[in-house]
Amino acid sequence: MKIIDGKSISQELRRELKKEVEDLKKQGIEPGLATILVGDDPASQVYVKSKIKDCAELGINSFHNPLPASAGEKDIISLIEKLNSDGKVHGILLQLPLPKGTPQDRCLESINPEKDADGLHPFNLGKLAIAKSWAEIEEQRLLAPCTPLGVMELLERSGVEISGKNAVVVGRSNLVGKPVALLLLSKNATVTMAHSRTKDLQEVCRKADILIAAIGKERFITKDFIKPGSAVIDVGINRSEKGLVGDVDFDSVKDFVSAITPVPGGVGPMTRTMLMKNTILAARKQGK
Amino acid sequence: MKIIDGKSISQELRRELKKEVEDLKKQGIEPGLATILVGDDPASQVYVKSKIKDCAELGINSFHNPLPASAGEKDIISLIEKLNSDGKVHGILLQLPLPKGTPQDRCLESINPEKDADGLHPFNLGKLAIAKSWAEIEEQRLLAPCTPLGVMELLERSGVEISGKNAVVVGRSNLVGKPVALLLLSKNATVTMAHSRTKDLQEVCRKADILIAAIGKERFITKDFIKPGSAVIDVGINRSEKGLVGDVDFDSVKDFVSAITPVPGGVGPMTRTMLMKNTILAARKQGK
Repeated sequence: MKIIDGKSISQELRRELKKEVEDLKKQGIEPGLATILVGDDPASQVYVKSKIKDCAELGINSFHNPLPASAGEKDIISLIEKLNSDGKVHGILLQLPLPKGTPQDRCLESINPEKDADGLHPFNLGKLAIAKSWAEIEEQRLLAPCTPLGVMELLERSGVEISGKNAVVVGRSNLVGKPVALLLLSKNATVTMAHSRTKDLQEVCRKADILIAAIGKERFITKDFIKPGSAVIDVGINRSEKGLVGDVDFDSVKDFVSAITPVPGGVGPMTRTMLMKNTILAARKQGK
Repeated sequence: MKIIDGKSISQELRRELKKEVEDLKKQGIEPGLATILVGDDPASQVYVKSKIKDCAELGINSFHNPLPASAGEKDIISLIEKLNSDGKVHGILLQLPLPKGTPQDRCLESINPEKDADGLHPFNLGKLAIAKSWAEIEEQRLLAPCTPLGVMELLERSGVEISGKNAVVVGRSNLVGKPVALLLLSKNATVTMAHSRTKDLQEVCRKADILIAAIGKERFITKDFIKPGSAVIDVGINRSEKGLVGDVDFDSVKDFVSAITPVPGGVGPMTRTMLMKNTILAARKQGK
């Protein structure tokens, strides 16, 4: 059994990205990420800070744009429009959630899809759905959501074969479940999208050569859900008395799987790194 | 066993749509569809003519815009931009395929997503992927691709239960497979996307309470693929010596299923009708 070490894979990837930034700078391109934080939610502040720190580590310029909690849709969109036309900014990250009552969709949709570092713009998700293969996704330099990209990178770098395999994605969120299903499909997996309304979930999951758990239920996936020899990616981050725990009951399943991500130290570190990768991709695509 | 009669369901729907157009006209809204045909491909000419005829039948204004085969991307996009800002035009249909060498994607993407009668704009597909439920799709009046919408309407009007059922979609095209998977998911099916690289396709299909065949292989689905009592929707239209035949070997499976669409007379008639439905939806959304 192999533990897929997200922390070390993430570090490996960061070293590669750092080099890529250096190469881009030699070509006169200085990748830049603009972050927008509306209000002063403490958790969001921590997230944005860590993203700014990641930029510094990799040599990416960052431009922080705090807005007061009182900022409305108009203020947010007018800031985004300014950043859309700012040549130094290649990626725009609008930290979610927005204060209650602010229409998140309309704000996200005002981001130029080419600068959509989080890969959440409907246009980009649509392009992802349309892409016929992973090669096409790469060729078009599509910006996809960060956590699903992190999942794919973990599978890839752990040598988990995807093509022709049965992948089951449990959970159908826009941030994880649906885009990861599309990405797995683009790599020729047979993909099943399962969720809270699925009947015989255990039986469905036991067909999985690759199981992606993105449900948000503490230790929900036990050995009864597991096909022996499968690879399990645990996207869950649940706060419990024992600290952060995943959607997978690690101890129950670890002796049956061929590979598994721990929580913490699995998917988590990858999500942050994929935001950097998207920013660099966007800079390369914008080519200036 | 019930034969799902696409022709009669389509007629029923047309009667409803005709009434809806009358109601809209009373509110001062005259739904209008602009068709664009580039070149003189005979099959495309037939398709466009039938769409114009459908408009006439339902009281929808149609505006035909032929372009010579020599028209390039610029000509097509400048026509589309004119139609985008034409208040009488609520839906724009760009007949595909475009002449070889013309970038289909960029032309389609120049259509205002609100006027995307075919539901093929990446923005609309992305919104479809993001929608959390069928109710949200209806509430937002999303324009989805016509054949997948037709499939959903057939299931709905034949009383096939979707929620909690296992649906298997064979074929992953952008026109049918992927959007129909998203629509089935929005109605709470557990959805498996299968395709040419799927291993043990028969076994995968035999799990299906609802089987959608969209492969483009003549009579490919035989009784070995069928779970007894399941509902089978045949999207295939293959030209053979015996005329049009589907992807499903109708005679082989008919005694095992609870419901099945014939070819012709199943999904086919629905696709045309859903284009009309989308045009009306677009007119309602644009509200003028």
